[in-house]
Amino acid sequence: MDLVVHKYGGSSVASPALIRAAAQRIQATHAQGKQVVVVVSAMGRTTDHLIQLAQRTVPSPSPRELDMLLTTGERVSMSLLAMALEANGVPAISFTGSQSGILTDHTHNEAQILDIRPHRIQEALNDNKAVIIAGFQGVSPSREITTLGRGGSDTTAVALAAALGAQECVIFTDVEGLMTADPRLVEGARLIPRLDYDQALELAHLGAKMHPRSLDLARRHRVRLVIRSSRFDKFPGTLISEEEKVENPDIRGIATQSGYSYWEVEATLPQIATATKKTGITLRFFHATPRTVRFLCKSDFDGALRKALEAGALTNRSIADVAVVSAVGHGLSANPEILSTFLGALGAIETLLVSSSALSITAAVNTRDLKSAANQLHAMLVGQ
Amino acid sequence: MDLVVHKYGGSSVASPALIRAAAQRIQATHAQGKQVVVVVSAMGRTTDHLIQLAQRTVPSPSPRELDMLLTTGERVSMSLLAMALEANGVPAISFTGSQSGILTDHTHNEAQILDIRPHRIQEALNDNKAVIIAGFQGVSPSREITTLGRGGSDTTAVALAAALGAQECVIFTDVEGLMTADPRLVEGARLIPRLDYDQALELAHLGAKMHPRSLDLARRHRVRLVIRSSRFDKFPGTLISEEEKVENPDIRGIATQSGYSYWEVEATLPQIATATKKTGITLRFFHATPRTVRFLCKSDFDGALRKALEAGALTNRSIADVAVVSAVGHGLSANPEILSTFLGALGAIETLLVSSSALSITAAVNTRDLKSAANQLHAMLVGQ
Repeated sequence: MDLVVHKYGGSSVASPALIRAAAQRIQATHAQGKQVVVVVSAMGRTTDHLIQLAQRTVPSPSPRELDMLLTTGERVSMSLLAMALEANGVPAISFTGSQSGILTDHTHNEAQILDIRPHRIQEALNDNKAVIIAGFQGVSPSREITTLGRGGSDTTAVALAAALGAQECVIFTDVEGLMTADPRLVEGARLIPRLDYDQALELAHLGAKMHPRSLDLARRHRVRLVIRSSRFDKFPGTLISEEEKVENPDIRGIATQSGYSYWEVEATLPQIATATKKTGITLRFFHATPRTVRFLCKSDFDGALRKALEAGALTNRSIADVAVVSAVGHGLSANPEILSTFLGALGAIETLLVSSSALSITAAVNTRDLKSAANQLHAMLVGQ
Repeated sequence: MDLVVHKYGGSSVASPALIRAAAQRIQATHAQGKQVVVVVSAMGRTTDHLIQLAQRTVPSPSPRELDMLLTTGERVSMSLLAMALEANGVPAISFTGSQSGILTDHTHNEAQILDIRPHRIQEALNDNKAVIIAGFQGVSPSREITTLGRGGSDTTAVALAAALGAQECVIFTDVEGLMTADPRLVEGARLIPRLDYDQALELAHLGAKMHPRSLDLARRHRVRLVIRSSRFDKFPGTLISEEEKVENPDIRGIATQSGYSYWEVEATLPQIATATKKTGITLRFFHATPRTVRFLCKSDFDGALRKALEAGALTNRSIADVAVVSAVGHGLSANPEILSTFLGALGAIETLLVSSSALSITAAVNTRDLKSAANQLHAMLVGQ
């Protein structure tokens, strides 16, 4: 029998009405004779509210107790969704991460899935039940409740799809799918109907609304992934699966990300690595010359980074309000013509850094130039 | 080593500030070298809000999924309390009902505790940790999450105190302890410093702010129970334990309860039992004559009761807005003088029913007369 995994994000189960709407869609899938496993996130902003509640209680909550707290969010939405299905006459049952057999390591707040033993899920599916699973959570070998960190519910969904041999894993979200550009920036942005795992991962790393971790898991287990709207059934969404690689440059999308600062440090890369290694700060898009390293870092870490560099007596300067804009697609780096087109499309816009990888070319620009840069690149490289 | 069980009700953990205050008291107990197990309810009105959320999603939620939903409330408060203790430097750990080894039957929403296997609690206590337990919840033999019904957290606390052989079980609440009367009705109401289990049970059945179920459990396992204020440490509270029975009438308190209707039905008691047995409605304070039965029933059930009686073609009439007022203490029923004093104290107040048991005399009055009745009885039978 066909088995599908659905995943509903927080914005798609944010109210009783949205939960009933999700139940109707699941009911329709169940009525087609499919086995359905549904992974849910916490309702709306619940997880943020729980974190705030913890912080109002103590300045720095312990990771173990924070997991105990945060995992309640998904349990609320899963039980409400199961109730809504039962009220529609669909046999349904909800399971916590622990009941689902999602076994993780001991790392609270950022646990890795070690194994999935979905005995109870299988039994419930055999009983013709729609099975609702709390995303984002698991249980450690010492029976402690753990959470999977950011993007955790997507990870739960993809890992379950792999463990259960699902036909596909559909991520329902508040966007239409993966887009050729952020539609808030680029008017001509359109849905990308189909991507392979590598392209999707590159887009996610460079700012698309999808977590790289679950994409990487999907790639490793060859899970067919569909990202689609929970509001508009008519949008087919984006299918991410294996695909023939093409040699022709095939630009798929313009990814954008803001919130960066640009840094120049008078030091070697090893000196910088030594000075910053305890901070856990990720430095991105390096350009190293013998005496100077240029890179970007998320602005949130500016203070900590400056402190670490100064502790290491490393001269530095930085520019705030920096964004990156990337063209993502196969064959880009092997094609100098594309690089020339890319730079030409940016025209007079000042670029602080330009970087390329196997699947992308990225420019760092001042945030005020991001919209024009994205539009000009989209027009030249993606087209209408 | 001395072991104590503390229980904090919803109003005593309703905010981060109250949770920190509870943590300070637990810290003080821990600093005395005592082992501490703390049972918590959900914060404030959380359980009611979760029930409303379920009802906004579906008209009648399934019991299994409702338990899944409701048990999140205690998990939030227990993790916050454990965080607050850790932030004060007290080693602490929170456990769910399942992790605490609270094994129940399969009855969702009203589960009975079958056994307690507190291995993890014992281990944590041996590690010098304060152990925080989610009240109201357990796990069934098929690993389903269950709840214990109304008064469930008190039941958890008393059952754990019995299983762990605790020195005492302290119920922290928003009142000073058990009172000689409801202080909102009777100005001269004072704290009852000491009661035996039977008196406490009788008071609870007749309206005192304590659930009979946990008292009954305390009585059966001889758990020393203290009910005291979570706000004012200076109030010593009420100690409920074994006590010498005394033959002298020893009136301890005036209990009051409103929200009843008074019924007269032209039928025999067996006819009424047959007509109402499927409704699950409790009829209280019967007086049966050969042709007429008089009794009280909670007004919430008036509609259902009338329907059942009419379906059985039983002629009936009822009076709404009825309350009961009881004098509770040893030796009451064996003492006609007390009955005479009781009735004399009510003076001109109309009594719809008068009933007595081993430990109490109860009168049903119109709710508008409840305050005078309670004050007159308190003045005559309890004294200032």
